[in-house]
Amino acid sequence: MTTDSTESRVLAAIDERRSRINDALDEELPLQHPERLYEASRYLLQAGGKRLRPTVTLVAGEALADVAPDSTDYRSFPTLNGAEVDLMRAAVALEVIQSFTLIHDDIMDDDDLRRGVPSVHNEYDTSTAILAGDTLYSSAFEIMADTGGEPANALAAMRLLSSTCTKICEGQALDIAFESRSDLLPDEYLEMVELKTAVLYGASAAVPAELLGADEAVVEAMYQYGIESGQAFQIQDDVLDLTVPSETLGKQRGSDLVEDKETLITLHARQQGVDVDGLIEAKSVDEVTEAEIDDAVAALEDAGSIDYAREKAEALAQQGKDRLDVLPDNEARDLLKAIADYLIDRGY
Amino acid sequence: MTTDSTESRVLAAIDERRSRINDALDEELPLQHPERLYEASRYLLQAGGKRLRPTVTLVAGEALADVAPDSTDYRSFPTLNGAEVDLMRAAVALEVIQSFTLIHDDIMDDDDLRRGVPSVHNEYDTSTAILAGDTLYSSAFEIMADTGGEPANALAAMRLLSSTCTKICEGQALDIAFESRSDLLPDEYLEMVELKTAVLYGASAAVPAELLGADEAVVEAMYQYGIESGQAFQIQDDVLDLTVPSETLGKQRGSDLVEDKETLITLHARQQGVDVDGLIEAKSVDEVTEAEIDDAVAALEDAGSIDYAREKAEALAQQGKDRLDVLPDNEARDLLKAIADYLIDRGY
Repeated sequence: MTTDSTESRVLAAIDERRSRINDALDEELPLQHPERLYEASRYLLQAGGKRLRPTVTLVAGEALADVAPDSTDYRSFPTLNGAEVDLMRAAVALEVIQSFTLIHDDIMDDDDLRRGVPSVHNEYDTSTAILAGDTLYSSAFEIMADTGGEPANALAAMRLLSSTCTKICEGQALDIAFESRSDLLPDEYLEMVELKTAVLYGASAAVPAELLGADEAVVEAMYQYGIESGQAFQIQDDVLDLTVPSETLGKQRGSDLVEDKETLITLHARQQGVDVDGLIEAKSVDEVTEAEIDDAVAALEDAGSIDYAREKAEALAQQGKDRLDVLPDNEARDLLKAIADYLIDRGY
Repeated sequence: MTTDSTESRVLAAIDERRSRINDALDEELPLQHPERLYEASRYLLQAGGKRLRPTVTLVAGEALADVAPDSTDYRSFPTLNGAEVDLMRAAVALEVIQSFTLIHDDIMDDDDLRRGVPSVHNEYDTSTAILAGDTLYSSAFEIMADTGGEPANALAAMRLLSSTCTKICEGQALDIAFESRSDLLPDEYLEMVELKTAVLYGASAAVPAELLGADEAVVEAMYQYGIESGQAFQIQDDVLDLTVPSETLGKQRGSDLVEDKETLITLHARQQGVDVDGLIEAKSVDEVTEAEIDDAVAALEDAGSIDYAREKAEALAQQGKDRLDVLPDNEARDLLKAIADYLIDRGY
């Protein structure tokens, strides 16, 4: 279990790097001709975001290179064989990919808001949003292509980035397909979460290992750390949707249930014989009452489904942390472990 | 000027390679889980297409390696320093990128048909089409990442592919923006054509130069060959829209004029004082008459605008062909020159 100090430590680590990440985003993705396209491409990136994935990339680099957190110029970062790479470009590329996926997902899901502002297709139009996402997509590869260092390592990072993007598309396709499936299995849900959400954490942790020239076993361990932390994050997100008060969540508690979204919790409950479809009568978050949500959550608690999901998230986060034993024992490694804890125990 | 034998020679060269390109597309982009996503991703590729860009890649490789056309296994193709690369994967990657751009363009332009079949967003739905395009996008990078050979050369090819994709997005953004511009300049139009259409021909010719380890000057010459041939192709396409009978075109002759699409021809005519907006009264291709088109074409001919565009296309094709003088004098080089001729003198 994490403590308040773990959370504040992780948030401090993110804060310390955020302005440099933001500056680098601005440098690597300048507002250029044609202006409207780049304005739309930069719009969501400028609307905010924790920069969690690029932070993982930077801290993973520090853990691998065995340097103290925040001690080293990310633009000329030491590799394991004494060369230098621009680790910041890699971090930026991962955030740019994340932004691309959000823009296209918002079109597909017809979500009006993102990070408290209108989504890109809403602020501009669908064509511009498709094109802004496409521009970010190839820009991320352009940025990643020029980190310097050994070409073989850069090529490996490019290969990992491309396979990661393909998996994210597969995960989004499964997520859409699952909306019309009534016979979903927990393992199918976990596969979807791995592909849609977790692989980008995996890439965020494994790309620095590729660039720094780490052994294949270390690359794989870093990737699995990201995968398992990312899965834990998503499962815990489903738990928090039911257990955190609406005012803290910033949206209606239980909205997944109201909107018939399957999660590991509902899939477990179905297996326990709970009539999940009958838990909520209300057809929208506007008409649901807190009392109705309370009853539904109580039924899911009685079935052990919320504990099941919470324990699954904790087990995955622990697995992820254990992967890091391949790294030197240093402060940055501890910070990566704290990030895994933070992903499941964050205050919302 | 080309002759019938040039055209038939180019078509024969395309025919000779098409089934192998198609087999490789099927191998590198198999129908896999999740099936519906990959079915949608493969749908347009399976609907046909000349495979002109991958043919350019393969023939450019033959010209660079100085081997006889069609004499060498593309899967283990000789580089300039005696190693081997999988040139077919590079060719496939370029066709996959082309297919991605068509799928997303058809969504943006709301085009119902492509290659005689419903466009992907029409056959499936918009979300699936966005995702199918996104899947092809990263798949192309995955395919390009594993051509073998020198990592530095593969990385250079990846870098070229990514900057090419960014430029294609910029070109599409300009094309959309130009629809609401009444003060477009010919140079702006040429820039749009370069970005939207020509750079992918440039990459098709230059990627093999990168992979085979050619000098930077040769890479640049091949790229310019593709750019200039590709621009010539698009300008000639605008000419053919006015000069080829509707039954041969397979669509209404003069449709660009009816739909108020600016081309190099209309932009030249405007500069000559022609009232381009008044040339056609009809508001759609359904109501326009051949006589009205004839009169409009006559006015554009009188202004010298059609000859201007035709000569521009011919000059660009010639420039492109001249770039190939950096290559060894061989049969494949002649074929690349014939392809440039074919692009502007093809029967429709």
